[in-house]
Amino acid sequence: MKQGTQLLKEGFAKMQKGGVIMDVTTPKQAKIAQDAGAVAVMALHAVPSDIRAAGGVARMADPEIIEKIISQVTIPVMAKCRIGHFAEAQILQELGVDMIDESEVLTPADEERHIEKSKFTVPFVCGCRNLGEALRRIDEGAAMIRTKGEPGTGNVVEAVRHVRKVRAEIDELMQNRSNQKFISQKSAEYRVPAELVWKTIEKGRLPVVNFAAGGIATPADAALMMQLGVDGIFVGSGIFKSQSPEKYAKAIVEAARNYDDPSILAKISRNLGQPMKGMEIKSLEIRMQDRGI
Amino acid sequence: MKQGTQLLKEGFAKMQKGGVIMDVTTPKQAKIAQDAGAVAVMALHAVPSDIRAAGGVARMADPEIIEKIISQVTIPVMAKCRIGHFAEAQILQELGVDMIDESEVLTPADEERHIEKSKFTVPFVCGCRNLGEALRRIDEGAAMIRTKGEPGTGNVVEAVRHVRKVRAEIDELMQNRSNQKFISQKSAEYRVPAELVWKTIEKGRLPVVNFAAGGIATPADAALMMQLGVDGIFVGSGIFKSQSPEKYAKAIVEAARNYDDPSILAKISRNLGQPMKGMEIKSLEIRMQDRGI
Repeated sequence: MKQGTQLLKEGFAKMQKGGVIMDVTTPKQAKIAQDAGAVAVMALHAVPSDIRAAGGVARMADPEIIEKIISQVTIPVMAKCRIGHFAEAQILQELGVDMIDESEVLTPADEERHIEKSKFTVPFVCGCRNLGEALRRIDEGAAMIRTKGEPGTGNVVEAVRHVRKVRAEIDELMQNRSNQKFISQKSAEYRVPAELVWKTIEKGRLPVVNFAAGGIATPADAALMMQLGVDGIFVGSGIFKSQSPEKYAKAIVEAARNYDDPSILAKISRNLGQPMKGMEIKSLEIRMQDRGI
Repeated sequence: MKQGTQLLKEGFAKMQKGGVIMDVTTPKQAKIAQDAGAVAVMALHAVPSDIRAAGGVARMADPEIIEKIISQVTIPVMAKCRIGHFAEAQILQELGVDMIDESEVLTPADEERHIEKSKFTVPFVCGCRNLGEALRRIDEGAAMIRTKGEPGTGNVVEAVRHVRKVRAEIDELMQNRSNQKFISQKSAEYRVPAELVWKTIEKGRLPVVNFAAGGIATPADAALMMQLGVDGIFVGSGIFKSQSPEKYAKAIVEAARNYDDPSILAKISRNLGQPMKGMEIKSLEIRMQDRGI
């Protein structure tokens, strides 16, 4: 299999910056997302809240659906494969998706290893809850990171926790940059080469584009995450489990663009109808965020 | 009872290589499996996911069903007996099955001993989760090994774990082949003669044919397992618990044949309808893989 260059992969990820990427399950939904100004869509067989409700094993979507979505829109199309399921990733690459999400929303196929993403030409995005996970995924070849949140809940609390956690751990590295021993320890703790830790310190941020995901359901949620310093937003169930997907899609795109302007945020937050209902984290039987660390 | 030669038994097992063996419960299902290109069928009274759902004690199938399946197809017919239940095995041999699976999918009849398989003329296949289990079964006379996975779940994660585990343990042996003490220790730990450990080192793999089993439900799953280095695939509930057994049966056979060609895999993965629903491993009350170690 031909390998893509890491530069090219990360360049593609950077083109999504400042934008919103929306989960879609049909070509019609993909069109709604594109019309609302989404920078990309994520094709999957069911949105995370439905995957959670259905239970069982969640797998790569039917290639037929993915191709129909690709032919429906002109924006990039991403699709999810199971953690460690490199055969699903090979199939998605063959289908011509623009990016693969090796995602904890689907049932993991390997609890010890992620896909060796550097062996693929297509860029990958992976989830993280902390800096160690993020750097391990980047070391494996991920071109983009999304903090995990808790998918399918419409509850932003875990997304906030993970963005703050990554930020705090980067700050800790930067404060200790003159302490060689500390940096060596951290690189061992994170199980990544020291040079990747140094790259993070030099940039003062994750070395690749970092989106927030998992539980974002309102324009205010999108603005919150952007103000916490992420480069963009993934919205899963928040759009198509709301009362008015078109309204929510447009409002969340606007909110990500104008995240630091409360007057615009106030305007776009009104009269949207019911947001997705959402769930308490404590009530969950399965925490998707704990998968694939 | 006449004993078959180990050479003949292993030769029969080798004839299955590269193929897919499917669980069937009726002559009609056996015909579907044969038409789809299965190299053999496994006759049993219920597929593993139904055995799991029904609870109670699972036993050898009714000889009437097994004979009807034998008379329906021209490919080899295998059947399952309980672990340690040599009387069931004697009956199956008498019925003329081509191979017996001493299987953890049925309720074990002996928790300390497996059947002395070298005393039979018919070849046996047995499950394993690691190299020690595999070598003990081979030492008892198994002509074929299948890594266990977790049967009836449609969740491939345990099948991946066991194949990787066996591979890692063989690699460890090979790296330490000049360390006589290490090999002696391993042979004691595995409770098998040192010559069987040496045979494994010389071959650089299990000394008999090794299939993957337990949780394989999609063509991508089959390709994943084949790429991990197994010689073939057992599919249990994955075929007849899917929406379209004929489609899934054909697609999984094609995937096992073309496991390293993503373009063919992408084609055969489309429009198959719903795969079997599947189960989270953490939600299981009974882990069949822990039986008969």
